[in-house]
Amino acid sequence: MANYPEKVYLNGEILKSSEAKISVFDRGFLFGDGIYEVMVQLNGRFFFGDAHLKRLDDCLEKVNIEFDTSTLKDKIDTLLKASNLESKDSLVYIQVTRGVAPRKHSFPKKTTATLMMYAIPFILPDVNNKLVSVVSQLDFRWHRCDIKMTSLLGNVMANDAIQSGYYEAVFHRDGKMTEGSHSNLFFVKDGIIYTHPADVLILNGITREIVLKLCRDIKIPYKEKAISFKNIHTVDEAFLTGTSTQIASIKQLDDHMFYDGNRPGPITRKLQKLFLELKKNYSPEMSYESSSRFLNSL
Amino acid sequence: MANYPEKVYLNGEILKSSEAKISVFDRGFLFGDGIYEVMVQLNGRFFFGDAHLKRLDDCLEKVNIEFDTSTLKDKIDTLLKASNLESKDSLVYIQVTRGVAPRKHSFPKKTTATLMMYAIPFILPDVNNKLVSVVSQLDFRWHRCDIKMTSLLGNVMANDAIQSGYYEAVFHRDGKMTEGSHSNLFFVKDGIIYTHPADVLILNGITREIVLKLCRDIKIPYKEKAISFKNIHTVDEAFLTGTSTQIASIKQLDDHMFYDGNRPGPITRKLQKLFLELKKNYSPEMSYESSSRFLNSL
Repeated sequence: MANYPEKVYLNGEILKSSEAKISVFDRGFLFGDGIYEVMVQLNGRFFFGDAHLKRLDDCLEKVNIEFDTSTLKDKIDTLLKASNLESKDSLVYIQVTRGVAPRKHSFPKKTTATLMMYAIPFILPDVNNKLVSVVSQLDFRWHRCDIKMTSLLGNVMANDAIQSGYYEAVFHRDGKMTEGSHSNLFFVKDGIIYTHPADVLILNGITREIVLKLCRDIKIPYKEKAISFKNIHTVDEAFLTGTSTQIASIKQLDDHMFYDGNRPGPITRKLQKLFLELKKNYSPEMSYESSSRFLNSL
Repeated sequence: MANYPEKVYLNGEILKSSEAKISVFDRGFLFGDGIYEVMVQLNGRFFFGDAHLKRLDDCLEKVNIEFDTSTLKDKIDTLLKASNLESKDSLVYIQVTRGVAPRKHSFPKKTTATLMMYAIPFILPDVNNKLVSVVSQLDFRWHRCDIKMTSLLGNVMANDAIQSGYYEAVFHRDGKMTEGSHSNLFFVKDGIIYTHPADVLILNGITREIVLKLCRDIKIPYKEKAISFKNIHTVDEAFLTGTSTQIASIKQLDDHMFYDGNRPGPITRKLQKLFLELKKNYSPEMSYESSSRFLNSL
């Protein structure tokens, strides 16, 4: 079982985990009315931290939560220092809710958003060498999966349906593969990479964007087009992406084996290698676009 | 703006609202991983209280939250006494979450469910005489609306889209009218009542069940069949039902007026009258079925 973090940052205060408490009238508790973000610090730098903070900002705007993300970096520094994780490999969880108000569905007028964050030691393996098995689920979640919200009961339920040994639940909606319960889903067929378009039915993962950028740079053709659930057995490779998952080869989906032995397909391996190079060479100035310079120099 | 209740019942303790706090690691806060219920006390009795508690129990089971609802009545009594609302007309809010654990999507093993409740004075009007206007919304919520969960961001967003003057947002999915953001939806056409079947796409409201029971007893034919969004203008009457809404006549849906003047259609008025009689004659022994005896004696 996971442990609690040492410290929690809550609305400007650093508290012991056991003492970090919020009002039962926080809309995060009453309505799941909040947005969250998870990012990792690697070699003293947040890996595509700006992209994570921008997504947080975008999601807050989508649900009309007023919160100034521009001061978050300083607050994260405070949290990391208090947690003895300054410059150390770590994972930071950030949650912003609409704040505290008497219970009423519609947005209250003048509330102050609640900010809760914590950091835990977290070491990403160089490459995620797991050969994972995943289980399919009908995608019964809402139709705004582009919003990284804390109303997560659907994801939680899908996750729990994972039988022991399964790494992730992957969803299909209207016959099309969408994404995992906390990762994005990619397929490779005849040398072309396929992943669901970044519309309202999936969360546009930062790692998903990085992988597509890698594809552009090294000229692997890709289509943001969903693969049909019924055609799963016709693809050559499949993998998951995510901030902590990185790039994980899917060996098995339900009863279908994508390969025998323990060697993922060549495109999955190539992307895993490139992703590792990108991590090693990452600098905070690197955006999706500017990473081209690095990639072009390979 | 609504007020906070005087007291909150939280895991066995009676606290001032301002002092009722839960851990930030409560899964209700991190994941919206909880179930809730709202019921009203009327003339010293909870109106179909057993039906509300049974629904709470059913929903907890659907999401695998272990919680013994059999002791809730005593706890509600304690809350009412502490709130000076014993036997007074009031509304009780009950929320049960999966409890406190380090953040991980899948269900933690040994957590104790969190129970939070509060009571506020609440006087139901004899009849809801409002002639309400409602606005339609594409139903973008998840596909398990039968679960009364606290992952409510979808409902909250729909609610906020209500322009001033609108009483409720009503959803349509795949061209069919489903329900309101916190009420059920009924239509009357050629003397027959229509409402969406109580499947996974709507919450089966207690008042919805009572209304269907009234229909059976007084021989108003009804069909649990959804009305098409495009056929809204062809129906004769429309109304909403809910624990605090009771039975509210819909005068206007988007641009369509169901009637002029301030007199709802005859079937809506008849049901409102019968519902009022039922409230006056209600006793806690009355189940949906046993209410027949009362109705047959009218």
